[in-house]
Amino acid sequence: MGNSFGQLFRITTWGESHGGGVGVVIDGCPPRIQLTEADIQRELDRRRPGQSSIVTQRNEADRAEILSGVFDDQTLGTPIAILVRNEDADPEAYKKIVNIFRPSHADYTYEAKYGIRNWRGGGRASARETIGRVAAGAVAQLVLTRLFPQFELVAYVAQVHEVMAKIDSRRVRRSDVERNAVRCPDEAAAKIMIQQIDQVRRDGDSVGGVIECVIRGVDAGLGEPVFDKLEAELARAMLSLPATKGFEIGSGFSAVTMRGSEHNDRFETRDGRVRTTTNFSGGVQGGISNGEDIFFRVAFKPTSTIAREQQTITTSGEETTIAPGGRHDPCVLPRAVPMVEAMAALVLCDLALRQRAISLQQRDET
Amino acid sequence: MGNSFGQLFRITTWGESHGGGVGVVIDGCPPRIQLTEADIQRELDRRRPGQSSIVTQRNEADRAEILSGVFDDQTLGTPIAILVRNEDADPEAYKKIVNIFRPSHADYTYEAKYGIRNWRGGGRASARETIGRVAAGAVAQLVLTRLFPQFELVAYVAQVHEVMAKIDSRRVRRSDVERNAVRCPDEAAAKIMIQQIDQVRRDGDSVGGVIECVIRGVDAGLGEPVFDKLEAELARAMLSLPATKGFEIGSGFSAVTMRGSEHNDRFETRDGRVRTTTNFSGGVQGGISNGEDIFFRVAFKPTSTIAREQQTITTSGEETTIAPGGRHDPCVLPRAVPMVEAMAALVLCDLALRQRAISLQQRDET
Amino acid sequence: MGNSFGQLFRITTWGESHGGGVGVVIDGCPPRIQLTEADIQRELDRRRPGQSSIVTQRNEADRAEILSGVFDDQTLGTPIAILVRNEDADPEAYKKIVNIFRPSHADYTYEAKYGIRNWRGGGRASARETIGRVAAGAVAQLVLTRLFPQFELVAYVAQVHEVMAKIDSRRVRRSDVERNAVRCPDEAAAKIMIQQIDQVRRDGDSVGGVIECVIRGVDAGLGEPVFDKLEAELARAMLSLPATKGFEIGSGFSAVTMRGSEHNDRFETRDGRVRTTTNFSGGVQGGISNGEDIFFRVAFKPTSTIAREQQTITTSGEETTIAPGGRHDPCVLPRAVPMVEAMAALVLCDLALRQRAISLQQRDET
Amino acid sequence: MGNSFGQLFRITTWGESHGGGVGVVIDGCPPRIQLTEADIQRELDRRRPGQSSIVTQRNEADRAEILSGVFDDQTLGTPIAILVRNEDADPEAYKKIVNIFRPSHADYTYEAKYGIRNWRGGGRASARETIGRVAAGAVAQLVLTRLFPQFELVAYVAQVHEVMAKIDSRRVRRSDVERNAVRCPDEAAAKIMIQQIDQVRRDGDSVGGVIECVIRGVDAGLGEPVFDKLEAELARAMLSLPATKGFEIGSGFSAVTMRGSEHNDRFETRDGRVRTTTNFSGGVQGGISNGEDIFFRVAFKPTSTIAREQQTITTSGEETTIAPGGRHDPCVLPRAVPMVEAMAALVLCDLALRQRAISLQQRDET
Repeated sequence: MGNSFGQLFRITTWGESHGGGVGVVIDGCPPRIQLTEADIQRELDRRRPGQSSIVTQRNEADRAEILSGVFDDQTLGTPIAILVRNEDADPEAYKKIVNIFRPSHADYTYEAKYGIRNWRGGGRASARETIGRVAAGAVAQLVLTRLFPQFELVAYVAQVHEVMAKIDSRRVRRSDVERNAVRCPDEAAAKIMIQQIDQVRRDGDSVGGVIECVIRGVDAGLGEPVFDKLEAELARAMLSLPATKGFEIGSGFSAVTMRGSEHNDRFETRDGRVRTTTNFSGGVQGGISNGEDIFFRVAFKPTSTIAREQQTITTSGEETTIAPGGRHDPCVLPRAVPMVEAMAALVLCDLALRQRAISLQQRDET
Repeated sequence: MGNSFGQLFRITTWGESHGGGVGVVIDGCPPRIQLTEADIQRELDRRRPGQSSIVTQRNEADRAEILSGVFDDQTLGTPIAILVRNEDADPEAYKKIVNIFRPSHADYTYEAKYGIRNWRGGGRASARETIGRVAAGAVAQLVLTRLFPQFELVAYVAQVHEVMAKIDSRRVRRSDVERNAVRCPDEAAAKIMIQQIDQVRRDGDSVGGVIECVIRGVDAGLGEPVFDKLEAELARAMLSLPATKGFEIGSGFSAVTMRGSEHNDRFETRDGRVRTTTNFSGGVQGGISNGEDIFFRVAFKPTSTIAREQQTITTSGEETTIAPGGRHDPCVLPRAVPMVEAMAALVLCDLALRQRAISLQQRDET
Repeated sequence: MGNSFGQLFRITTWGESHGGGVGVVIDGCPPRIQLTEADIQRELDRRRPGQSSIVTQRNEADRAEILSGVFDDQTLGTPIAILVRNEDADPEAYKKIVNIFRPSHADYTYEAKYGIRNWRGGGRASARETIGRVAAGAVAQLVLTRLFPQFELVAYVAQVHEVMAKIDSRRVRRSDVERNAVRCPDEAAAKIMIQQIDQVRRDGDSVGGVIECVIRGVDAGLGEPVFDKLEAELARAMLSLPATKGFEIGSGFSAVTMRGSEHNDRFETRDGRVRTTTNFSGGVQGGISNGEDIFFRVAFKPTSTIAREQQTITTSGEETTIAPGGRHDPCVLPRAVPMVEAMAALVLCDLALRQRAISLQQRDET
Repeated sequence: MGNSFGQLFRITTWGESHGGGVGVVIDGCPPRIQLTEADIQRELDRRRPGQSSIVTQRNEADRAEILSGVFDDQTLGTPIAILVRNEDADPEAYKKIVNIFRPSHADYTYEAKYGIRNWRGGGRASARETIGRVAAGAVAQLVLTRLFPQFELVAYVAQVHEVMAKIDSRRVRRSDVERNAVRCPDEAAAKIMIQQIDQVRRDGDSVGGVIECVIRGVDAGLGEPVFDKLEAELARAMLSLPATKGFEIGSGFSAVTMRGSEHNDRFETRDGRVRTTTNFSGGVQGGISNGEDIFFRVAFKPTSTIAREQQTITTSGEETTIAPGGRHDPCVLPRAVPMVEAMAALVLCDLALRQRAISLQQRDET
């Protein structure tokens, strides 16, 4: 019962890594938005396995089919159903883990919760589940571009293991990010990251990292206190992604060692509108966007699937070892960039529609 | 439209810092739970201003009245409404800020969102809003104690500005936390923290810090993938609290510099049940509790209200200065401990009821 | 967990007939709507016991207090909490029914559901619960008047027992309704209804009836297929009121004996806009308002509380008799008129805000 | 944004009559329920066009494919996605109505709401939309059978135009209903109904009718006052079905002409448990099931699509005539029986899971 996200722009995703496919239903998309399958495919291709040498070498096309809600390349206002078929993976490959709880995977917790699990692959806990999110995020971005002409949403890899990139979040653009396979706009750092990921793969191990995300051109006024604050919705969205362990908005944990007199963002009038001189707030105050860049960071753990032999137990509690082998992502970060963007877009699109609903004044005054 | 939290154990809070009062309606509380006003008052007193020398010296009794849903000290299954009256604060005190946007407060964003704001105090953005959460959290803890006899929930201050405490989260108990005014169970660190907060107040400044929270005795199986994962719900809950800037579950941001082979929590059989040898996961895998301690950390920024003069602008955009004066919390951490606990209890109680709803097997087999 | 209503204009009611009081929290009310306690009191007075000779003679003032969400007589966009205290009813009066299940009351079902009930009065099942609905409905009507300048909402008693009034729903106005105690705009029928209700009271019995409701001046486009259709939301709203047994939209059950060629509402252009020549649809087609009058009917059963002796059983299953005595409404219809209006207003206000959220075109083109 | 139904057993339907297909996602189905495509197909076949001589002669196979959520014929607890492809209908057939608003169809209201509509067939307003509901209802019935071993749900046609059947709702079974094409268990009445429908089709006209539904074997305690009362949820469910105009629970509109002393259902102890001697309440008191048969009635209007020429207007407001021709259902009732059952099952399944969530006692005591 946790497979829906959003109040007005509401998505419901479904699908396991093995079975008929994965997909999403988008309910509440405004009508008359231009939308084609190519708009969705573009984002899915950024998330796709096999896209570069540093991601898993599984090769799935992940072709999106729009089943409903679009007519003559325009949204109808009715639910948009999108389907991506699973390619016929070999279920035999998983037979050896039928009775094993893989360390730091969801095998045990799914068993504890449901008393049953699809042991062929990760089932619903597989990152394949995020296909529906990315597809829906592509639609959300089209709506946001319509609502906010200056809208810009860019996520990028800021850190892989101990390699930290130097990036000016105020200036980075999506084209900078797409320039290399690791999706880090600091070219020098990117090179080292790629080498490290390569090394880690050869070691049969994995690494994590940090993705940063900046959102520009959004009006002040988005976010619904006190529980659906903008940063609360973003935090939930990010922590719902596989492999995430932390979230920071604006100054984040670094705020802890600052004093109020340093951390407070002073207001000023700039270019005829209310601005702040600094942006430790990360574009949100009191849970509501203030018109500055929205900026947040997400921590990803090292991938749980590694090639090395590990100690664990069987489903009946006996000690055993496991050496999953097979193809895996030694570092999920490059493919997680479009996932972070998709979730951010879903949060903003939903909050933007919610704000429209109550803004009687704005409309009357236009 | 963001003032409700939870799906089954669902609370709706209301109230501004000035006006008739603040309160909460709890809908979905199971019937026949023992509950008195004293159970609620106990938690409110831990959140109350004026409780010690290091918090704001405003002196409000914050007396809770249960208006409905309880009969003969037992819950009825009907909505529980709880009211705390505002004491008559002097609205004159705020007249000087009617036309000023205070730095890093929500004055500007509320104005941008609603076109109107209650300028007497923080209005809905005041931390006074959390009274309803803490009252509801007290009820949630009673339900959880009923569901999980070993249930234990402890939050504490782990860092204030640059002072870090040394605490073994596996052993800390609430009585350790309540031993000093700063709610830090490391007595040596607590002393320095108290001195620092005192110094900061004399400087007319403020500091932030980190609160850690550990939850023990909860069954495996709580959390609703893929969007209402346990860590996602906790992250949203924490980031919805005033002054929070970051959230980490388990290893958090420190996972970034670990390798998968170090970070994976190996399964073993201990005391006849499935356990992990380490707990980098923080008690949750694939978004579902695994029976280990649930552990997370929350970053709080330094309080925005400081006594020093600051540059800012008026509501019509002219430069001005502000020196708020008056009483404030130089550090919100000690009073935020019961807020963190309340939000954590609300998340767990809701997820526990959701899990009961679908567990046909469990019941059949009992 | 069923005490909230609405998606965007969302109310949560609370309170039993005995205890601290009853009330409502309105979340999602647009900001800057003029609102005073008098606006709410006006509607509550129409619902109040003791207002005329044909309703229950209990005399409760039902004074509404706005606790939050309003500042300088304008809504803030934050939750509006409204409280009505219970007057100190004599709980002794109910002692004789502690162990009895009253026929066609909710005593048994509350016991079966919750394992506990507030036996002092009807508890949560008392019609006193509707105070929160009527208070919130008053606010919804103010919002609707702001959104639709021609908005008009009129409910009235169309039938009491076997007395049917003759009313032209297209022309009836609220002032016609308020002209007599039974709230029936057909004066001749009203007189007979009043006599009948009086007779029934003297007989220690009760009667039911039909309330009709017409809504004018609402734009085409409200209603959210396929589940939140306008008529579906209205049906749910009406059947959630105490003592209701049936609902009809437009032609209702009389559609059954018509042929399609008679029943279809032909489109025409009138006064420059799309109209229908007949309105068997009741103002809604495909679940969406079409700009014609929205018209529906609600059946109310005879009040369950009667003064006559009745056979029933005790809570331990033994046969007994009951003669409730005391004051009661021999016919709920007159006081149910503002309840029907309130629920209709809540449905429309919510759907109107939902429609605003997705109408990008409309706004762009204005 | 109205395409989801249910709180815990929550379905989201999607799809237009023309396009990729129609379907449903079921979120919140308990795990380990036996489920195959055949279970779903059985219900879809009862709803299918072309199944008998008195329904539309379109011939669509409506084959259901389960895409996710089921493994080894057992539910996983993850979302169950079900897809039914549209067969390639000839869009040319609809070209003549591109610019026409068909009387009592949703053409005009969809245009008014969304500013766009899929003019090929009924789009989302087509009864084809109910395929997702019927598929999900089949799953809900399996869950209910698991929860309540005596569970039985039977809907049947009680009236077509002026032909009323004589049926003892307490005894009717599904096998009685399936005995004839009109799904009326009174064989004599059924024959006349079939003749009438046949005649109406030859006249190029249509008729409506009444469906009754009885639900047996459900525990007392289902229903969530005050807004999600059992009858309120049923009313909403039924009025969300295409072509419905009225709903009655228990005595319904006939309660109006009864006195309280006649209408009250007296309690008695029968077979060791609390029962009522009469059932005017229709199995629900105070919004909660009381263990008696749940009984309700639904009014359906005559189908809007008729073969006769009708006056109407074009989308630009000019007068025109329309003679839709083609195949249509002269009476929707026979095919609506499984739709009514599906919606009733969805309501009950959801309320049953909601009741389980809060019933701590029950479980503890078992």
